[in-house]
Amino acid sequence: MTKIYDKVALIGLGLIASSMFWAMKRGGLAGTVSGYARSQETRDTARKIGLCDHVCDSAIEAVKDADLVVLCVPVGAMEAVAQDISAHLKPGATISDVGSVKRSVIDTVGPFVPQGVHFIPAHPLAGTEHSGPEAGFASLFDNRWSLLVPVEGTEPQALAKLRAFWEGMGANVDEMDADHHDLVLAVTSHAPHLIAYTMVGVADDLRRVTDSEVIKYSAAGFRDFTRIAASDPTMWRDVFLTNKDATLEILGRFTEELFDLQRAIRTGDGDKLHAYFTRTRAIRRGIIQAGQDTDAPDFGRTKVSRE
Amino acid sequence: MTKIYDKVALIGLGLIASSMFWAMKRGGLAGTVSGYARSQETRDTARKIGLCDHVCDSAIEAVKDADLVVLCVPVGAMEAVAQDISAHLKPGATISDVGSVKRSVIDTVGPFVPQGVHFIPAHPLAGTEHSGPEAGFASLFDNRWSLLVPVEGTEPQALAKLRAFWEGMGANVDEMDADHHDLVLAVTSHAPHLIAYTMVGVADDLRRVTDSEVIKYSAAGFRDFTRIAASDPTMWRDVFLTNKDATLEILGRFTEELFDLQRAIRTGDGDKLHAYFTRTRAIRRGIIQAGQDTDAPDFGRTKVSRE
Repeated sequence: MTKIYDKVALIGLGLIASSMFWAMKRGGLAGTVSGYARSQETRDTARKIGLCDHVCDSAIEAVKDADLVVLCVPVGAMEAVAQDISAHLKPGATISDVGSVKRSVIDTVGPFVPQGVHFIPAHPLAGTEHSGPEAGFASLFDNRWSLLVPVEGTEPQALAKLRAFWEGMGANVDEMDADHHDLVLAVTSHAPHLIAYTMVGVADDLRRVTDSEVIKYSAAGFRDFTRIAASDPTMWRDVFLTNKDATLEILGRFTEELFDLQRAIRTGDGDKLHAYFTRTRAIRRGIIQAGQDTDAPDFGRTKVSRE
Repeated sequence: MTKIYDKVALIGLGLIASSMFWAMKRGGLAGTVSGYARSQETRDTARKIGLCDHVCDSAIEAVKDADLVVLCVPVGAMEAVAQDISAHLKPGATISDVGSVKRSVIDTVGPFVPQGVHFIPAHPLAGTEHSGPEAGFASLFDNRWSLLVPVEGTEPQALAKLRAFWEGMGANVDEMDADHHDLVLAVTSHAPHLIAYTMVGVADDLRRVTDSEVIKYSAAGFRDFTRIAASDPTMWRDVFLTNKDATLEILGRFTEELFDLQRAIRTGDGDKLHAYFTRTRAIRRGIIQAGQDTDAPDFGRTKVSRE
């Protein structure tokens, strides 16, 4: 139990913020935690389940005296929040965020960070398909990566403190520059989400195969796509609008490759397909060895026993 | 415990055949089960782990006196096996299979089914990303669907027996005609697999993002694709080569839709993206309500507790 910040303020109380609260509590990382959410309903839920020591009725009240302020709202909503709280940040405080895109956050939030306040964008690579204040849990960040994206001139001590904070919540921490972050995430997250959304949309839209057939027979592979295609629509709309270039670049590469494999199917080039499918197995092995996924069949959904 | 067939022969001893053996044993569905696999190594493994009552050194020996013969080899290998065993099938026996494509199996195996033998193609929609004789387990088919694709003139009694057999292994059973089966599976299985293989291949092939980054940061969504992209390469090569038309049709629809969403990203049409992402959530809910997937966050990979 090592306290790192006296007071932490969470702006936005969805899956990530609520998981941060429970993880901070588990690790004893903060003296007190205040929270704010725009919707009255979310604030009521937070109060009911004991999420945050103080749930405030304005962002300005929540950030008062806070040593760390974390913006946990969709990327498209960050600029307005930053503008709102800017004049109320404590000198010496750190302002950070958990947005999935970093260049856009730097460009839109950065201008509102006053002199004497540290600005260190961050992105925990963790989440589930569930959203809202009740979806959070303390172990969400355990053994997941949190990427810190310090801007030029970041003070090393403030950076070290934020790193210790994320490590205290169970995460591994890497530093990365904003543009590389946005490209890496386009590959490991943004393009896969758009592809999953598309495949689910196509299945939903076919006349010749009914929705009920798609649902009944989904265990043949399709259902794996539906999990990430059930993620929060507002968050993901903002991700694609703010990481446009990198996402479109990766989708372009994806389409090129898909066309190549479609041609192999059309021409009956079995050797090419077999070689391709063999190569992709290695990446899965790497992910399991790195502790980033389970080796249990079917993600462990199925209880496995011979008898 | 209801015995349905006196003797069952499994040709091919991979994930599906081995799961069938353990499920038959669990349900007491067969008097004896013989098995054959082309590779000596697989036969040795089967003997070591007690898979099948008799592991035979030829398919001809395995099917001798069998009341039910199930072809559990990749779709592309079925014709040769059928030719091989054709003259050795017992009059009145049923020959079936577990292939993922049905029109092709009917066209290639059908001609080798002698008069007096029932031919009832089948397809259990179950599997994991693991393969081989040691990957099987008794509960693989529990609450999954198995599709029977009877050809014209199938005797009702033989069909009812095969239905009872699959139900005895835990499956729900539907009947479907071959062409509709191949289209439904193109949507729920074949196109999703090709898309997953492609996305994993793209990620593996980028110069500007290293494999090690892809692996470390895969929990942001990408890893969900890697499970099905780790499936057996031979089986999947054969699926695409034998269900070419339906797969290419669905991939065509997918690409059309993907381009439409890419254009929405490029033009900044947030409303369109939001509406699309909201719609796809409903399919996920349907799948969970139908008992075809878990509602636990992250497929239940993560242990969830607030403290």
